[in-house]
Amino acid sequence: MVYRLWYWPTIQGRGEFVRLALEAAGIPYEDCARTQGAEAMMQDLAARAKTGRGPYAPPYLALDGHAIAQVANILHYLGQQHDLAPSGLADRYWLDQLQLTIADIVAEVHNVHHPVAMMDYYDDQKPEAARAAAQFRDERLPKYLDHFEAAAAQGAGDWLFADRWTYGDTSLFQLVEGLRYMFPQRMKTLAPRYPALLRLHAAVADLPGIRAYLASERRLPFNTDGIFRHYPELDAA
Amino acid sequence: MVYRLWYWPTIQGRGEFVRLALEAAGIPYEDCARTQGAEAMMQDLAARAKTGRGPYAPPYLALDGHAIAQVANILHYLGQQHDLAPSGLADRYWLDQLQLTIADIVAEVHNVHHPVAMMDYYDDQKPEAARAAAQFRDERLPKYLDHFEAAAAQGAGDWLFADRWTYGDTSLFQLVEGLRYMFPQRMKTLAPRYPALLRLHAAVADLPGIRAYLASERRLPFNTDGIFRHYPELDAA
Repeated sequence: MVYRLWYWPTIQGRGEFVRLALEAAGIPYEDCARTQGAEAMMQDLAARAKTGRGPYAPPYLALDGHAIAQVANILHYLGQQHDLAPSGLADRYWLDQLQLTIADIVAEVHNVHHPVAMMDYYDDQKPEAARAAAQFRDERLPKYLDHFEAAAAQGAGDWLFADRWTYGDTSLFQLVEGLRYMFPQRMKTLAPRYPALLRLHAAVADLPGIRAYLASERRLPFNTDGIFRHYPELDAA
Repeated sequence: MVYRLWYWPTIQGRGEFVRLALEAAGIPYEDCARTQGAEAMMQDLAARAKTGRGPYAPPYLALDGHAIAQVANILHYLGQQHDLAPSGLADRYWLDQLQLTIADIVAEVHNVHHPVAMMDYYDDQKPEAARAAAQFRDERLPKYLDHFEAAAAQGAGDWLFADRWTYGDTSLFQLVEGLRYMFPQRMKTLAPRYPALLRLHAAVADLPGIRAYLASERRLPFNTDGIFRHYPELDAA
Protein backbone atom coordinates (compact mmCIF):
# COMPACT_ATOMS: atom_id res chain seq x y z
CA MET A 1 0.00 0.00 0.00
CA VAL A 2 1.18 3.49 -0.78
CA TYR A 3 0.29 5.91 2.01
CA ARG A 4 -1.30 9.20 1.07
CA LEU A 5 0.22 12.01 3.12
CA TRP A 6 -1.35 15.44 2.90
CA TYR A 7 0.62 18.50 3.87
CA TRP A 8 1.44 21.95 2.53
CA PRO A 9 3.50 21.41 -0.62
CA THR A 10 6.01 24.27 -0.28
CA ILE A 11 7.28 23.94 3.29
CA GLN A 12 8.85 21.35 5.55
CA GLY A 13 6.70 22.43 8.51
CA ARG A 14 5.10 19.85 10.75
CA GLY A 15 4.69 17.45 7.84
CA GLU A 16 8.45 16.97 7.70
CA PHE A 17 8.41 14.91 10.90
CA VAL A 18 6.17 12.42 9.11
CA ARG A 19 8.09 12.54 5.83
CA LEU A 20 11.36 11.78 7.63
CA ALA A 21 10.01 8.68 9.38
CA LEU A 22 8.58 7.38 6.10
CA GLU A 23 11.79 8.09 4.22
CA ALA A 24 14.05 6.58 6.87
CA ALA A 25 11.98 3.41 6.87
CA GLY A 26 11.66 3.26 3.09
CA ILE A 27 7.86 3.21 3.30
CA PRO A 28 6.23 4.22 -0.01
CA TYR A 29 4.01 7.29 0.18
CA GLU A 30 2.48 9.91 -2.04
CA ASP A 31 3.01 13.46 -0.86
CA CYS A 32 -0.42 14.31 -2.22
CA ALA A 33 -0.42 18.10 -2.15
CA ARG A 34 2.90 18.11 -3.99
CA THR A 35 1.49 15.97 -6.76
CA GLN A 36 -2.09 17.30 -6.77
CA GLY A 37 -1.72 20.84 -5.41
CA ALA A 38 -2.74 22.68 -2.26
CA GLU A 39 -6.19 23.36 -3.70
CA ALA A 40 -6.87 19.62 -3.83
CA MET A 41 -5.87 19.40 -0.17
CA MET A 42 -8.29 22.15 0.82
CA GLN A 43 -11.08 20.30 -0.98
CA ASP A 44 -10.11 17.03 0.66
CA LEU A 45 -10.02 18.71 4.08
CA ALA A 46 -13.41 20.36 3.55
CA ALA A 47 -14.97 17.03 2.57
CA ARG A 48 -13.54 15.36 5.66
CA ALA A 49 -14.69 18.22 7.91
CA LYS A 50 -18.28 17.51 6.87
CA THR A 51 -18.07 14.08 8.48
CA GLY A 52 -17.29 15.64 11.88
CA ARG A 53 -14.08 13.64 12.04
CA GLY A 54 -11.83 15.67 9.80
CA PRO A 55 -8.33 16.87 10.71
CA TYR A 56 -8.15 20.32 12.29
CA ALA A 57 -5.13 20.98 10.09
CA PRO A 58 -2.54 19.16 7.97
CA PRO A 59 -0.51 16.99 8.13
CA TYR A 60 -2.71 13.94 7.91
CA LEU A 61 -2.44 10.44 6.58
CA ALA A 62 -5.39 9.31 4.48
CA LEU A 63 -6.29 5.68 5.08
CA ASP A 64 -9.21 3.62 3.81
CA GLY A 65 -12.31 5.26 5.22
CA HIS A 66 -10.60 7.60 7.65
CA ALA A 67 -7.64 9.91 8.17
CA ILE A 68 -5.15 10.24 11.01
CA ALA A 69 -3.98 13.75 11.91
CA GLN A 70 -1.61 15.28 14.47
CA VAL A 71 2.07 14.48 13.99
CA ALA A 72 2.53 12.48 17.20
CA ASN A 73 -0.59 10.47 16.43
CA ILE A 74 0.52 9.73 12.85
CA LEU A 75 3.95 8.66 14.05
CA HIS A 76 2.42 6.46 16.74
CA TYR A 77 0.36 4.76 14.03
CA LEU A 78 3.32 4.27 11.71
CA GLY A 79 5.36 3.01 14.64
CA GLN A 80 2.76 0.35 15.38
CA GLN A 81 2.22 -0.66 11.78
CA HIS A 82 5.86 -0.75 10.70
CA ASP A 83 7.76 -1.65 13.84
CA LEU A 84 9.32 1.79 14.14
CA ALA A 85 8.88 1.93 17.89
CA PRO A 86 10.30 -0.09 20.79
CA SER A 87 8.32 -3.05 22.04
CA GLY A 88 8.30 -2.44 25.81
CA LEU A 89 5.37 -0.53 27.27
CA ALA A 90 7.46 1.93 29.30
CA ASP A 91 9.67 2.60 26.27
CA ARG A 92 6.71 3.23 23.99
CA TYR A 93 5.08 5.74 26.32
CA TRP A 94 8.39 7.46 26.87
CA LEU A 95 8.91 7.75 23.10
CA ASP A 96 5.48 9.32 22.63
CA GLN A 97 6.08 11.64 25.59
CA LEU A 98 9.28 12.81 23.92
CA GLN A 99 7.51 13.27 20.58
CA LEU A 100 4.87 15.42 22.29
CA THR A 101 7.56 17.50 23.97
CA ILE A 102 9.07 18.05 20.51
CA ALA A 103 5.61 19.19 19.40
CA ASP A 104 5.61 21.66 22.29
CA ILE A 105 8.90 23.26 21.33
CA VAL A 106 7.80 23.36 17.69
CA ALA A 107 4.71 25.34 18.74
CA GLU A 108 6.91 27.70 20.77
CA VAL A 109 9.20 28.14 17.77
CA HIS A 110 6.23 29.21 15.66
CA ASN A 111 5.17 31.55 18.41
CA VAL A 112 8.57 33.29 18.28
CA HIS A 113 7.83 34.77 14.85
CA HIS A 114 4.06 35.03 15.40
CA PRO A 115 3.68 35.96 19.07
CA VAL A 116 0.60 38.17 19.03
CA ALA A 117 -1.25 37.37 15.82
CA MET A 118 -0.91 33.87 14.39
CA MET A 119 -3.00 34.79 11.36
CA ASP A 120 -1.08 37.97 10.45
CA TYR A 121 2.34 38.45 8.89
CA TYR A 122 5.64 38.49 10.71
CA ASP A 123 6.12 42.05 9.46
CA ASP A 124 3.08 43.07 11.49
CA GLN A 125 4.64 41.91 14.77
CA LYS A 126 8.40 42.39 14.51
CA PRO A 127 9.01 44.19 17.83
CA GLU A 128 6.96 41.59 19.67
CA ALA A 129 8.80 38.79 17.85
CA ALA A 130 12.15 40.29 18.86
CA ARG A 131 11.12 40.15 22.50
CA ALA A 132 9.74 36.61 22.19
CA ALA A 133 12.93 35.50 20.41
CA ALA A 134 15.19 36.86 23.14
CA GLN A 135 13.48 34.86 25.86
CA PHE A 136 13.22 31.80 23.66
CA ARG A 137 16.95 31.87 22.84
CA ASP A 138 18.06 32.57 26.41
CA GLU A 139 15.67 30.49 28.51
CA ARG A 140 13.31 28.19 26.68
CA LEU A 141 15.69 26.80 24.06
CA PRO A 142 18.44 25.67 26.50
CA LYS A 143 15.82 24.20 28.82
CA TYR A 144 14.37 22.08 26.02
CA LEU A 145 17.78 21.13 24.64
CA ASP A 146 19.00 20.09 28.09
CA HIS A 147 15.99 17.78 28.21
CA PHE A 148 16.68 16.30 24.77
CA GLU A 149 20.40 15.99 25.49
CA ALA A 150 19.62 13.92 28.58
CA ALA A 151 17.25 11.80 26.50
CA ALA A 152 19.91 11.23 23.84
CA ALA A 153 22.63 10.56 26.41
CA GLN A 154 20.71 7.83 28.23
CA GLY A 155 20.78 5.61 25.13
CA ALA A 156 23.72 3.22 25.01
CA GLY A 157 24.64 3.96 21.39
CA ASP A 158 23.68 6.70 18.96
CA TRP A 159 19.92 6.23 19.33
CA LEU A 160 17.29 6.93 21.95
CA PHE A 161 16.88 3.17 22.23
CA ALA A 162 20.15 1.31 22.16
CA ASP A 163 19.80 -0.92 19.15
CA ARG A 164 17.69 0.93 16.58
CA TRP A 165 16.37 4.24 15.36
CA THR A 166 12.76 5.20 15.98
CA TYR A 167 10.66 8.19 14.95
CA GLY A 168 11.91 9.91 18.09
CA ASP A 169 15.36 9.99 16.52
CA THR A 170 14.23 11.29 13.15
CA SER A 171 12.16 13.95 14.95
CA LEU A 172 15.11 15.10 17.07
CA PHE A 173 17.17 15.25 13.87
CA GLN A 174 14.60 17.57 12.31
CA LEU A 175 14.41 19.71 15.43
CA VAL A 176 18.17 20.26 15.36
CA GLU A 177 18.03 20.96 11.62
CA GLY A 178 15.30 23.53 12.06
CA LEU A 179 16.91 25.24 15.03
CA ARG A 180 20.25 25.47 13.22
CA TYR A 181 18.52 27.12 10.27
CA MET A 182 16.52 29.54 12.42
CA PHE A 183 19.14 30.38 15.05
CA PRO A 184 22.56 29.66 13.51
CA GLN A 185 24.47 31.88 15.92
CA ARG A 186 22.70 30.71 19.03
CA MET A 187 22.97 27.05 18.08
CA LYS A 188 26.71 27.48 17.43
CA THR A 189 27.14 28.87 20.93
CA LEU A 190 25.09 26.10 22.51
CA ALA A 191 26.47 23.18 20.49
CA PRO A 192 29.23 22.15 22.94
CA ARG A 193 26.58 21.51 25.60
CA TYR A 194 24.81 18.90 23.48
CA PRO A 195 27.24 16.20 22.30
CA ALA A 196 24.83 13.27 22.54
CA LEU A 197 22.04 15.10 20.72
CA LEU A 198 24.39 16.11 17.93
CA ARG A 199 25.74 12.57 17.69
CA LEU A 200 22.17 11.34 17.29
CA HIS A 201 21.57 14.03 14.66
CA ALA A 202 24.62 12.87 12.70
CA ALA A 203 23.57 9.23 12.95
CA VAL A 204 20.12 10.01 11.53
CA ALA A 205 21.67 12.06 8.71
CA ASP A 206 23.72 8.99 7.86
CA LEU A 207 20.80 6.54 7.61
CA PRO A 208 20.62 5.35 3.98
CA GLY A 209 16.99 6.41 3.59
CA ILE A 210 17.68 9.85 5.04
CA ARG A 211 20.86 10.35 3.01
CA ALA A 212 18.93 9.61 -0.16
CA TYR A 213 16.04 11.84 0.89
CA LEU A 214 18.19 14.83 1.79
CA ALA A 215 19.94 14.60 -1.59
CA SER A 216 16.63 14.43 -3.47
CA GLU A 217 14.18 17.07 -4.60
CA ARG A 218 11.66 15.62 -2.20
CA ARG A 219 13.45 17.44 0.63
CA LEU A 220 12.21 21.01 0.41
CA PRO A 221 14.62 23.70 1.54
CA PHE A 222 13.82 25.63 4.71
CA ASN A 223 12.21 28.98 3.97
CA THR A 224 10.43 31.83 5.71
CA ASP A 225 6.96 30.37 5.17
CA GLY A 226 7.45 27.36 7.43
CA ILE A 227 7.67 26.75 11.16
CA PHE A 228 11.41 27.31 11.43
CA ARG A 229 12.20 30.70 9.86
CA HIS A 230 15.52 32.40 9.61
CA TYR A 231 15.12 36.09 10.33
CA PRO A 232 18.63 37.33 11.17
CA GLU A 233 17.28 39.92 13.58
CA LEU A 234 15.81 37.16 15.76
CA ASP A 235 19.13 35.37 16.20
CA ALA A 236 22.07 36.20 18.47
CA ALA A 237 25.01 34.28 19.88
CA MET B 1 -3.37 0.22 42.84
CA VAL B 2 -3.59 3.89 43.68
CA TYR B 3 -2.10 6.03 40.90
CA ARG B 4 0.28 8.78 41.87
CA LEU B 5 -0.46 11.91 39.85
CA TRP B 6 1.95 14.82 40.10
CA TYR B 7 0.81 18.29 39.15
CA TRP B 8 0.91 21.82 40.54
CA PRO B 9 -1.23 21.80 43.69
CA THR B 10 -2.91 25.20 43.38
CA ILE B 11 -4.22 25.25 39.81
CA GLN B 12 -6.41 23.20 37.52
CA GLY B 13 -4.04 23.71 34.59
CA ARG B 14 -3.15 20.83 32.32
CA GLY B 15 -3.39 18.38 35.20
CA GLU B 16 -7.13 18.87 35.33
CA PHE B 17 -7.63 16.91 32.12
CA VAL B 18 -6.12 13.90 33.86
CA ARG B 19 -7.93 14.47 37.15
CA LEU B 20 -11.28 14.60 35.34
CA ALA B 21 -10.78 11.29 33.56
CA LEU B 22 -9.73 9.62 36.82
CA GLU B 23 -12.66 11.11 38.72
CA ALA B 24 -15.22 10.28 36.06
CA ALA B 25 -14.05 6.65 36.02
CA GLY B 26 -13.78 6.41 39.80
CA ILE B 27 -10.12 5.37 39.60
CA PRO B 28 -8.28 5.90 42.91
CA TYR B 29 -5.34 8.31 42.75
CA GLU B 30 -3.20 10.40 45.00
CA ASP B 31 -2.79 14.00 43.86
CA CYS B 32 0.73 13.92 45.23
CA ALA B 33 1.72 17.58 45.18
CA ARG B 34 -1.48 18.43 47.01
CA THR B 35 -0.69 15.96 49.78
CA GLN B 36 3.12 16.33 49.78
CA GLY B 37 3.68 19.85 48.46
CA ALA B 38 5.13 21.40 45.33
CA GLU B 39 8.65 21.16 46.74
CA ALA B 40 8.34 17.38 46.86
CA MET B 41 7.31 17.45 43.20
CA MET B 42 10.37 19.50 42.24
CA GLN B 43 12.58 16.98 44.00
CA ASP B 44 10.81 14.08 42.34
CA LEU B 45 11.17 15.76 38.93
CA ALA B 46 14.86 16.47 39.47
CA ALA B 47 15.53 12.85 40.41
CA ARG B 48 13.70 11.64 37.31
CA ALA B 49 15.55 14.13 35.08
CA LYS B 50 18.84 12.51 36.11
CA THR B 51 17.75 9.26 34.47
CA GLY B 52 17.42 10.99 31.09
CA ARG B 53 13.79 9.90 30.93
CA GLY B 54 12.13 12.42 33.18
CA PRO B 55 9.07 14.48 32.29
CA TYR B 56 9.77 17.86 30.76
CA ALA B 57 7.02 19.27 32.95
CA PRO B 58 4.04 18.17 35.06
CA PRO B 59 1.54 16.59 34.89
CA TYR B 60 2.88 13.07 35.06
CA LEU B 61 1.70 9.75 36.37
CA ALA B 62 4.26 7.87 38.46
CA LEU B 63 4.20 4.14 37.83
CA ASP B 64 6.49 1.40 39.08
CA GLY B 65 9.92 2.20 37.67
CA HIS B 66 8.85 4.93 35.25
CA ALA B 67 6.59 7.92 34.76
CA ILE B 68 4.28 8.91 31.94
CA ALA B 69 4.06 12.60 31.07
CA GLN B 70 2.15 14.71 28.54
CA VAL B 71 -1.60 14.88 29.00
CA ALA B 72 -2.56 13.10 25.77
CA ASN B 73 -0.06 10.35 26.52
CA ILE B 74 -1.32 9.88 30.09
CA LEU B 75 -4.91 9.74 28.88
CA HIS B 76 -3.99 7.25 26.17
CA TYR B 77 -2.45 5.06 28.87
CA LEU B 78 -5.44 5.33 31.18
CA GLY B 79 -7.73 4.65 28.25
CA GLN B 80 -5.90 1.42 27.47
CA GLN B 81 -5.65 0.26 31.08
CA HIS B 82 -9.18 1.11 32.15
CA ASP B 83 -11.23 0.76 29.01
CA LEU B 84 -11.86 4.49 28.74
CA ALA B 85 -11.39 4.53 24.98
CA PRO B 86 -13.29 3.00 22.08
CA SER B 87 -12.13 -0.36 20.79
CA GLY B 88 -11.95 0.25 17.04
CA LEU B 89 -8.64 1.35 15.59
CA ALA B 90 -10.01 4.29 13.59
CA ASP B 91 -11.98 5.47 16.62
CA ARG B 92 -8.97 5.30 18.91
CA TYR B 93 -6.76 7.34 16.60
CA TRP B 94 -9.49 9.85 16.08
CA LEU B 95 -9.93 10.23 19.84
CA ASP B 96 -6.21 10.87 20.31
CA GLN B 97 -6.20 13.29 17.38
CA LEU B 98 -8.98 15.22 19.08
CA GLN B 99 -7.16 15.19 22.42
CA LEU B 100 -4.06 16.59 20.72
CA THR B 101 -6.12 19.31 19.06
CA ILE B 102 -7.44 20.20 22.52
CA ALA B 103 -3.81 20.41 23.65
CA ASP B 104 -3.17 22.82 20.78
CA ILE B 105 -5.94 25.21 21.76
CA VAL B 106 -4.85 24.99 25.40
CA ALA B 107 -1.36 26.11 24.37
CA GLU B 108 -2.87 28.97 22.37
CA VAL B 109 -4.97 29.97 25.37
CA HIS B 110 -1.83 30.21 27.48
CA ASN B 111 -0.20 32.23 24.76
CA VAL B 112 -3.04 34.77 24.92
CA HIS B 113 -1.93 35.99 28.36
CA HIS B 114 1.77 35.27 27.82
CA PRO B 115 2.38 36.11 24.16
CA VAL B 116 5.93 37.45 24.21
CA ALA B 117 7.52 36.16 27.41
CA MET B 118 6.28 32.86 28.80
CA MET B 119 8.54 33.16 31.84
CA ASP B 120 7.49 36.72 32.78
CA TYR B 121 4.31 38.07 34.36
CA TYR B 122 1.14 38.97 32.55
CA ASP B 123 1.59 42.53 33.84
CA ASP B 124 4.79 42.76 31.80
CA GLN B 125 2.98 42.06 28.51
CA LYS B 126 -0.52 43.50 28.78
CA PRO B 127 -0.64 45.42 25.47
CA GLU B 128 0.66 42.38 23.62
CA ALA B 129 -1.84 40.15 25.40
CA ALA B 130 -4.69 42.46 24.42
CA ARG B 131 -3.72 42.10 20.79
CA ALA B 132 -3.30 38.34 21.06
CA ALA B 133 -6.67 38.06 22.82
CA ALA B 134 -8.50 39.97 20.11
CA GLN B 135 -7.35 37.63 17.37
CA PHE B 136 -7.90 34.59 19.53
CA ARG B 137 -11.48 35.60 20.36
CA ASP B 138 -12.37 36.60 16.80
CA GLU B 139 -10.59 34.01 14.67
CA ARG B 140 -8.91 31.15 16.48
CA LEU B 141 -11.58 30.41 19.07
CA PRO B 142 -14.52 30.04 16.64
CA LYS B 143 -12.37 27.97 14.30
CA TYR B 144 -11.51 25.52 17.06
CA LEU B 145 -15.05 25.47 18.45
CA ASP B 146 -16.49 24.81 14.99
CA HIS B 147 -14.20 21.81 14.84
CA PHE B 148 -15.23 20.52 18.26
CA GLU B 149 -18.91 21.17 17.54
CA ALA B 150 -18.68 19.01 14.43
CA ALA B 151 -16.95 16.33 16.49
CA ALA B 152 -19.66 16.44 19.16
CA ALA B 153 -22.45 16.51 16.58
CA GLN B 154 -21.31 13.38 14.73
CA GLY B 155 -21.96 11.24 17.82
CA ALA B 156 -25.41 9.69 17.90
CA GLY B 157 -26.13 10.59 21.53
CA ASP B 158 -24.48 12.97 23.98
CA TRP B 159 -20.97 11.55 23.60
CA LEU B 160 -18.24 11.57 20.98
CA PHE B 161 -18.82 7.83 20.67
CA ALA B 162 -22.45 6.89 20.74
CA ASP B 163 -22.68 4.59 23.71
CA ARG B 164 -20.18 5.82 26.30
CA TRP B 165 -18.07 8.67 27.57
CA THR B 166 -14.32 8.68 26.94
CA TYR B 167 -11.52 11.01 28.00
CA GLY B 168 -12.29 13.03 24.88
CA ASP B 169 -15.62 13.98 26.45
CA THR B 170 -14.18 14.93 29.84
CA SER B 171 -11.51 16.97 28.06
CA LEU B 172 -14.05 18.86 25.95
CA PHE B 173 -16.01 19.51 29.15
CA GLN B 174 -12.93 21.08 30.73
CA LEU B 175 -12.19 23.12 27.63
CA VAL B 176 -15.68 24.63 27.71
CA GLU B 177 -15.38 25.25 31.46
CA GLY B 178 -12.07 27.03 31.04
CA LEU B 179 -13.17 29.12 28.09
CA ARG B 180 -16.34 30.18 29.90
CA TYR B 181 -14.25 31.30 32.87
CA MET B 182 -11.69 33.14 30.74
CA PHE B 183 -13.99 34.66 28.12
CA PRO B 184 -17.50 34.82 29.65
CA GLN B 185 -18.77 37.49 27.27
CA ARG B 186 -17.34 35.93 24.16
CA MET B 187 -18.56 32.47 25.07
CA LYS B 188 -22.04 33.82 25.72
CA THR B 189 -22.10 35.31 22.24
CA LEU B 190 -20.82 32.13 20.62
CA ALA B 191 -22.93 29.65 22.62
CA PRO B 192 -25.85 29.38 20.16
CA ARG B 193 -23.45 28.11 17.50
CA TYR B 194 -22.42 25.11 19.58
CA PRO B 195 -25.46 23.11 20.74
CA ALA B 196 -23.89 19.65 20.46
CA LEU B 197 -20.73 20.70 22.29
CA LEU B 198 -22.74 22.25 25.11
CA ARG B 199 -24.97 19.17 25.31
CA LEU B 200 -21.83 17.07 25.69
CA HIS B 201 -20.56 19.49 28.34
CA ALA B 202 -23.81 19.13 30.30
CA ALA B 203 -23.74 15.34 30.01
CA VAL B 204 -20.21 15.18 31.44
CA ALA B 205 -21.18 17.53 34.28
CA ASP B 206 -23.95 15.08 35.11
CA LEU B 207 -21.76 11.97 35.32
CA PRO B 208 -21.90 10.73 38.94
CA GLY B 209 -18.11 10.83 39.34
CA ILE B 210 -17.90 14.34 37.94
CA ARG B 211 -20.85 15.63 39.96
CA ALA B 212 -19.18 14.38 43.14
CA TYR B 213 -15.81 15.80 42.10
CA LEU B 214 -17.12 19.24 41.22
CA ALA B 215 -18.87 19.43 44.60
CA SER B 216 -15.72 18.41 46.47
CA GLU B 217 -12.67 20.33 47.63
CA ARG B 218 -10.61 18.29 45.21
CA ARG B 219 -11.87 20.54 42.42
CA LEU B 220 -9.74 23.66 42.66
CA PRO B 221 -11.38 26.90 41.56
CA PHE B 222 -10.11 28.59 38.41
CA ASN B 223 -7.69 31.41 39.19
CA THR B 224 -5.23 33.72 37.46
CA ASP B 225 -2.25 31.41 37.99
CA GLY B 226 -3.51 28.65 35.71
CA ILE B 227 -3.86 28.16 31.98
CA PHE B 228 -7.33 29.67 31.69
CA ARG B 229 -7.22 33.12 33.30
CA HIS B 230 -9.99 35.63 33.58
CA TYR B 231 -8.64 39.10 32.90
CA PRO B 232 -11.72 41.20 32.08
CA GLU B 233 -9.74 43.39 29.69
CA LEU B 234 -9.04 40.35 27.48
CA ASP B 235 -12.70 39.49 27.02
CA ALA B 236 -15.34 41.06 24.77
CA ALA B 237 -18.66 39.97 23.35
